[in-house]
Amino acid sequence: MFHFITIIAKGLVFLALPTMYPETEPTGDDAQAISPLVKQYEPAARQILEATMKSNDAWDKLEELCLTVGHRLSGSPGLERAIDWAIAAMNSEGQENVRREKVMVPHWVRGRESATIVKPHEMRMAMLGLGGSVGTPSAGITAPVEVVVNEEELESLGSGAKGKIILFNYPMPPYDPQRGSGYGKAVRFRTNGARLASVHGAVACLVRSVTANSLHTPHCGAMRYGDAKVKIPAAAVSIEDAETIAGLRRRGVEVVVNLKMEAKTYPDAESANVIGELRGTTWPDEVVVIGGHIDAWDVGHGAHDDGGGCVIAMDAINILRKLKLIPKRTIRVVLWTNEENGLRGGKAYARDHADELKNHVAAIESDSGVFAPRGYSVQCHDKDREHLAAEQMRAILSLLQPIGLMTVTTGYSGADISPMGPANVVLMGHRVEGSKYFDYHHSPADTIDKVDRDDFSRNVAALATVAYVLADMPLRIGDKE
Amino acid sequence: MFHFITIIAKGLVFLALPTMYPETEPTGDDAQAISPLVKQYEPAARQILEATMKSNDAWDKLEELCLTVGHRLSGSPGLERAIDWAIAAMNSEGQENVRREKVMVPHWVRGRESATIVKPHEMRMAMLGLGGSVGTPSAGITAPVEVVVNEEELESLGSGAKGKIILFNYPMPPYDPQRGSGYGKAVRFRTNGARLASVHGAVACLVRSVTANSLHTPHCGAMRYGDAKVKIPAAAVSIEDAETIAGLRRRGVEVVVNLKMEAKTYPDAESANVIGELRGTTWPDEVVVIGGHIDAWDVGHGAHDDGGGCVIAMDAINILRKLKLIPKRTIRVVLWTNEENGLRGGKAYARDHADELKNHVAAIESDSGVFAPRGYSVQCHDKDREHLAAEQMRAILSLLQPIGLMTVTTGYSGADISPMGPANVVLMGHRVEGSKYFDYHHSPADTIDKVDRDDFSRNVAALATVAYVLADMPLRIGDKE
Repeated sequence: MFHFITIIAKGLVFLALPTMYPETEPTGDDAQAISPLVKQYEPAARQILEATMKSNDAWDKLEELCLTVGHRLSGSPGLERAIDWAIAAMNSEGQENVRREKVMVPHWVRGRESATIVKPHEMRMAMLGLGGSVGTPSAGITAPVEVVVNEEELESLGSGAKGKIILFNYPMPPYDPQRGSGYGKAVRFRTNGARLASVHGAVACLVRSVTANSLHTPHCGAMRYGDAKVKIPAAAVSIEDAETIAGLRRRGVEVVVNLKMEAKTYPDAESANVIGELRGTTWPDEVVVIGGHIDAWDVGHGAHDDGGGCVIAMDAINILRKLKLIPKRTIRVVLWTNEENGLRGGKAYARDHADELKNHVAAIESDSGVFAPRGYSVQCHDKDREHLAAEQMRAILSLLQPIGLMTVTTGYSGADISPMGPANVVLMGHRVEGSKYFDYHHSPADTIDKVDRDDFSRNVAALATVAYVLADMPLRIGDKE
Repeated sequence: MFHFITIIAKGLVFLALPTMYPETEPTGDDAQAISPLVKQYEPAARQILEATMKSNDAWDKLEELCLTVGHRLSGSPGLERAIDWAIAAMNSEGQENVRREKVMVPHWVRGRESATIVKPHEMRMAMLGLGGSVGTPSAGITAPVEVVVNEEELESLGSGAKGKIILFNYPMPPYDPQRGSGYGKAVRFRTNGARLASVHGAVACLVRSVTANSLHTPHCGAMRYGDAKVKIPAAAVSIEDAETIAGLRRRGVEVVVNLKMEAKTYPDAESANVIGELRGTTWPDEVVVIGGHIDAWDVGHGAHDDGGGCVIAMDAINILRKLKLIPKRTIRVVLWTNEENGLRGGKAYARDHADELKNHVAAIESDSGVFAPRGYSVQCHDKDREHLAAEQMRAILSLLQPIGLMTVTTGYSGADISPMGPANVVLMGHRVEGSKYFDYHHSPADTIDKVDRDDFSRNVAALATVAYVLADMPLRIGDKE
């Protein structure tokens, strides 16, 4: 998951997160008006839930993607294998119009890398170069480290940053059920740290991994040089390593680090968005998009981010087709490529399908992990339409009561769907329990063993039910009755 | 922490753990009999608690050890720096008879190492060579992997193990407040896996890290070749990596791994136990030993295992001296060397002080981490004495009520003190809340940031109070009144 919506403030980029939007109760009249309409879908919802909970097809499919395909970072053979795998799976399940839609993607390769404290005593750190970073000379960069918590501390270092490796040691707070993760605020140093440090003459940039919990686990992610005059290499280190360096510096001990990175950016590579459809019976040209992103960072399995999102979309139309629940409109699975370090897939889809977007009834993205489902976020350029769609979704989600309490939020709903926003498409984010997501996010710990089988089936059931109702009900979501 | 007490059963070695012994309630007459005696120590206990909670001296001391000394595996310069550090700290705090007692220790060096899945797709694993393992040729060992869960599965592989790398994928269950950690049962593959696999012609041994929780974190520890005819290299891999390989094999996919280890055992090196005393006023030759082990694995800080145990012992006599609470008997801090991969320190202490052991009133070891204190285990060769000592300890622990509920268990109390067992010394283990210990144990995540400052002070207070009472009360613990 990469957060696309950015707010420029005080010269810094902050990222807007779903968790910044309060959940509201389903009290509106609009929700009540849609209720009889929703009621007729109760048997279908029950059927979907029973079928998904009975089999673990979806989880097995995710395991196959996670284990047999290999890493799937943009530009890698693994990503293209994953795309082939998804095409083959959807074909074998009898989906329609299964195809690739070509997208050129950035091609950054990590190579070998290491970060080692060489003074006061040798200690190898857990590190990951940041996506898009330049590499180091082959002997690495060896320099003393200065630690700062934020931009102000960097400023106050002044010329003290010159020739140094700057470590941004901004702590992400523990997950809070009300306020969410605090990721949005903490991630700015990963994104912008190298640019900020280079202005002050730093020779490299280290960033405390953007997570609240660590067992010596590094978390990677994208960085940007923006208007930086000098591109310095940037890497994330584990919380433990960041705290070790910070503790030594607090004690006045000089810390020298050697950073070696072979990282390199090659010319853009060919990739593709993957598409497969459950064609509608009555209004097949009206489309409900559901999907996730097929690319992932080159560590772990990308199980929660975002193999799970892809597979629940694939399995949602699989289960509907098996149950012969064919809706009036088309449900289109889209597996976007290159969400993590470019968003080229999301941009290409909106551009290549621009003429169709007026018939996109909704676009639902799942890119927050596949923990227990908790509801949906709703976002629309037209705020009246957003409000109405949110109220209607509250009524629709009553169908999911057997799965657990579902709530509706409004606001940011997903990176890959965001380029469809200006066309006034109703965008939705598939929301899940969020307390552990950032423990695994972009790290080698984002693996299939972290995905609960039953929760995963519940995600399929929730998404299949919502997509089916949105694609079948006479009313287009967000329209006045 | 290394578990020294072993029970040979069915040809396998199981490890006896404190958690295997049930806690019992303080109901005996003996506890009541000692109560008036205990009551007189309430003002001292209050004083100790207030003083420890007011300052974070002890935590700062632990941080200094963790950050500035470096790794302290037996045979390393870091261990000798740690010993120098402890000597200097106890001298500066005015302790008496501060000294080294020479001990020769095993000298195993990890060197560079890696384990990489090379087929079906390249994936670098999180690994740690096991202490005592031989290395590999410099190009490493490249071979297909077979996965077994236990000894029976290895047996049933038969000749299928020949030429293979055997992965023991035995899962340690989640921590259970009643039944403890399950470490004792799971650790046998780390200890014996290489020997078992070599019998079947395996070329190397991988072991799932002995922990219930992982964020791609490897956990090392000691292994033994025993009577193995062929010594094959052995390493631990993270749960995620073990599950990745196991999942691929379940799907019938061939998995090939390259294991590279420079590990080497050198001739024994000189090290030392560290000793410092708070000399008793009345019976100075009667001794209460308190301590932990000064060596640690060469990853992380060894903060919980067992830097914390050392520092709470050092600070216990520091705080008593500061408060001028000088007991009638001597409290002797012993920081044993080489607990992790040899127990040479513990054995040397019992041997070199054999004549004195009849005057060792008690020996308390802290080697289960420094989470919130929960009580003490009591162990004595003479079971009547053990029972009586446990009852008396229950009365003494009532002094610690302001810190939290303390309980007494009987049985295994610590590795370093165990060689004093045959001399009928009353052995005690300083017990703490145990749910997280094995998440960090022997891993690069056992770092100072995992130690709560207030809990750490509470450990100092608990140990100082117990040591003071044991050293001061007219009755020798375990004696009939």
